[in-house]
Amino acid sequence: MSNQRPSLSRRELHTGLLGLASAALAPAQTGSTVQRWDRFEASWSGPSSGNPFRDVQLRARFSIGHRTVEVSGFYDGNGQYKVRFMPDTLGAWTFVTSSNSGALDGKTGGFTCVAPAAGNHGPVGVSHTWHFSYADGTPYKPLGTTCYAWSHQTDALEEQTLATLRSGPFNKMRMCVFPKDYVYNKNEPPFYPFPRENGKNDFSRFVPEYFQHQERRIAQLMAMGIEADLILFHPYDRWGYKVMPPEVDDAYLRYLVARLSSFRNVWWSMANEWDFVKEKKVSDWDRYFQIVQETDPYQHPRSIHNGSVLYDHGKPWVTHTSIQGDDFSKTEEWLRTYKKPVIFDECKYEGNIPRRWGNISGHEMMRRFWLATVNGAYGGHGETFLNEEEVLWWSKGGVLHGESPQRIAFLRRILDESPAQGLNPLPNQKYPCAARENEYYLYFYDLHQPAEMDYELPEQVSFQADLIDPWAMTIQPLPGTHRGKFTLKLPGKPYQAMRFRKA
Amino acid sequence: MSNQRPSLSRRELHTGLLGLASAALAPAQTGSTVQRWDRFEASWSGPSSGNPFRDVQLRARFSIGHRTVEVSGFYDGNGQYKVRFMPDTLGAWTFVTSSNSGALDGKTGGFTCVAPAAGNHGPVGVSHTWHFSYADGTPYKPLGTTCYAWSHQTDALEEQTLATLRSGPFNKMRMCVFPKDYVYNKNEPPFYPFPRENGKNDFSRFVPEYFQHQERRIAQLMAMGIEADLILFHPYDRWGYKVMPPEVDDAYLRYLVARLSSFRNVWWSMANEWDFVKEKKVSDWDRYFQIVQETDPYQHPRSIHNGSVLYDHGKPWVTHTSIQGDDFSKTEEWLRTYKKPVIFDECKYEGNIPRRWGNISGHEMMRRFWLATVNGAYGGHGETFLNEEEVLWWSKGGVLHGESPQRIAFLRRILDESPAQGLNPLPNQKYPCAARENEYYLYFYDLHQPAEMDYELPEQVSFQADLIDPWAMTIQPLPGTHRGKFTLKLPGKPYQAMRFRKA
Repeated sequence: MSNQRPSLSRRELHTGLLGLASAALAPAQTGSTVQRWDRFEASWSGPSSGNPFRDVQLRARFSIGHRTVEVSGFYDGNGQYKVRFMPDTLGAWTFVTSSNSGALDGKTGGFTCVAPAAGNHGPVGVSHTWHFSYADGTPYKPLGTTCYAWSHQTDALEEQTLATLRSGPFNKMRMCVFPKDYVYNKNEPPFYPFPRENGKNDFSRFVPEYFQHQERRIAQLMAMGIEADLILFHPYDRWGYKVMPPEVDDAYLRYLVARLSSFRNVWWSMANEWDFVKEKKVSDWDRYFQIVQETDPYQHPRSIHNGSVLYDHGKPWVTHTSIQGDDFSKTEEWLRTYKKPVIFDECKYEGNIPRRWGNISGHEMMRRFWLATVNGAYGGHGETFLNEEEVLWWSKGGVLHGESPQRIAFLRRILDESPAQGLNPLPNQKYPCAARENEYYLYFYDLHQPAEMDYELPEQVSFQADLIDPWAMTIQPLPGTHRGKFTLKLPGKPYQAMRFRKA
Repeated sequence: MSNQRPSLSRRELHTGLLGLASAALAPAQTGSTVQRWDRFEASWSGPSSGNPFRDVQLRARFSIGHRTVEVSGFYDGNGQYKVRFMPDTLGAWTFVTSSNSGALDGKTGGFTCVAPAAGNHGPVGVSHTWHFSYADGTPYKPLGTTCYAWSHQTDALEEQTLATLRSGPFNKMRMCVFPKDYVYNKNEPPFYPFPRENGKNDFSRFVPEYFQHQERRIAQLMAMGIEADLILFHPYDRWGYKVMPPEVDDAYLRYLVARLSSFRNVWWSMANEWDFVKEKKVSDWDRYFQIVQETDPYQHPRSIHNGSVLYDHGKPWVTHTSIQGDDFSKTEEWLRTYKKPVIFDECKYEGNIPRRWGNISGHEMMRRFWLATVNGAYGGHGETFLNEEEVLWWSKGGVLHGESPQRIAFLRRILDESPAQGLNPLPNQKYPCAARENEYYLYFYDLHQPAEMDYELPEQVSFQADLIDPWAMTIQPLPGTHRGKFTLKLPGKPYQAMRFRKA
């Protein structure tokens, strides 16, 4: 039967027609080669009667040598069933399916996993306790932005957002899987995740096109080297997605993981402002984490973002601490307590709206990224400038108006030149310093304007000093080398940084 | 006997010779008239053998009608004994002394208390729970500065400090009674408070010239309308004044009160950084407060300034909360808890020294004064710019180099135009607002840069709005009047303030 060999899916045809050439957008098929950490996909026709989402189970075991990885398949509509897989090992992989549907059970196939192309570094994971790296060992230093609802807008606006991102400094995007209902966010989304009629959801089924659309946008981010930090639940809702029955929540999570975990740039954020979803208990959030942890074969990063109250980031399923807040001085405590990376994903937004969280200056946003950095954490960007069209970057994407992105690009350059293992807070400093001892020290003086400063670096190492102006984006090498105790003249103006690197 | 009439003291001759014409500098004598809240002084010759400081007790009862006020006299050296008194009631006052020395016992005299001259508003006290006023009811809104050791320098430098203050915005000076030993403060003082030989103190006696000198400087501040916030103990000491025996501490406090309480501009600050004086217990500080409270007939303001740990400002002898810190958001809690005024006496200093506490910009200092104000508190200034001579304003006085004093002068103008009863924090605001409800509202947007803002003021009152730029020092009246809910355009830049006054 023709369906015994995986066929090219409608979605693949669709992306092909759009001329999206990236390997990431067109998953490999049986018999072909697949780059390490790219996506393999197989699909078969199967039952389309009844409720395929609920009634049909499909799994596949992928094997290489003695190793097997089991993944869940999913129903993609129109009688099509799929399994996806992200291989992490070079060589010949085979698979076999199991299903309660005869049409899907015992399907076999395989592919050859080949070396990744340039720019494909694999998925990001935690490394050196407090930092991140790609699977190939390349450091990943998150400098993220936020466009909560960007992938629920018109095609034209979504393409504009992608174009903006292409020339920007950001390597992570926080975005909601569900559409968003909030101030400046009142437009109806083009798709719904569940069939919806007369304002009522049919939670027993998914709308595959909804998820196909999200996947396309996630793949486009991947092609630009941007991690997709997917927010799985959030409180800004008028459609009923924050108050679904528990079994629907769980089915949604499993469906999402089956569809999306093979995208190497996916991160799982259980919530935005979890504590503002008054209908859920802490045990619900625990359960969501556990479902994602148990079902994601690749263990993508998992976090949860707070409103007023911190979730206990010490729980074992949390891979990193995602913070709304701007008390950067708490970083050291969190690093020490949780033994996980700290990202200040939301430390207010550059903009000019009346809300407190949406009207800091570009200078202040720059300052916060630097404070996060020198405290041993990572910053997060967002932008909220009023405009007639009510297209605010932080929600809908579009274009950027602010002064901070170019300074974040400058910081990215600084971080790219910093030690691969990441920078940790140096204890007992009068001014925060992120360092790798005996090798690299980065001070930021914030609002202080010392005209001179005493330093104490290791005696046995010579260091070169650079005076850095994060706003002017200048790096001024200072003459000579330094070791032990010494004093340097500083310009006596605020918001300066000093970098010492092993000579 | 000639000594039965109080004679012109050496000190009075001295000040007379210097041509200091102010009534405040030349206390009135028996038979003369004394302005309300000015200083009356009588002096007599008495025993000069033995230890007059310890052996001779002298008190005086001042009476008007059925009312009496008892004050302590003191030995001023060279066989001279004095009593001082600050009358608060117009009319004919008489006095009679009592002493264990026959030469000083039963002395009588009197004076007529007349109306105060312009500029003499009496001593400052707490009013309206969270604010201050002079005894004549004139509001007093503290905008203080700090020159810890200014009155322990050369005459030339001290006169320079006074000249600087004369043209400045400050109406309170924090200053140490004892000399100071600290970074940038290593010079030997011209006088010692106790006889000192070969590095040893004779704690059984005082050096009257030391206290006479302090009094002269305090009187000069008084003549300029500046309150002298006297710091009675501090930890920066190499002479032994922070570790005196308890009975010496107590005798020192009693001597100080006897000499100084008749100066209407005196405030008592038990300590600077009380918790950094490791040798003293909380019970010591309690005792100091109680001694001052019991012996000061005029109940001048009493406070204590913290290092890292707050003293319990709820104790009944504390009149107002003197804070080192910059978490202005705590003001509301302190106002509510202590039911006393809050002064952020030390919220870091404008300057450029390496220390964190001494290198904020003038802009940041301006910002902190505004944050204190709109949170319902009062700010405090200090300045620490490096210079060859090591004359930093915060310790030795001299001249000011910074950009904040003129902005503090601008704020003083704003406060002078604000309601007499003082501004209290308006609860449940998105941005801090100091207000007198139905009459006056002052918002400061700090680092936020809203381009528009929603307001909700009382419906029944019309308000005029002024956009204030605290750095540019401009006040821009907005057209029309406002009431109830309305929206205003703002310039979309940080550090702006908005004032609403009843039309």
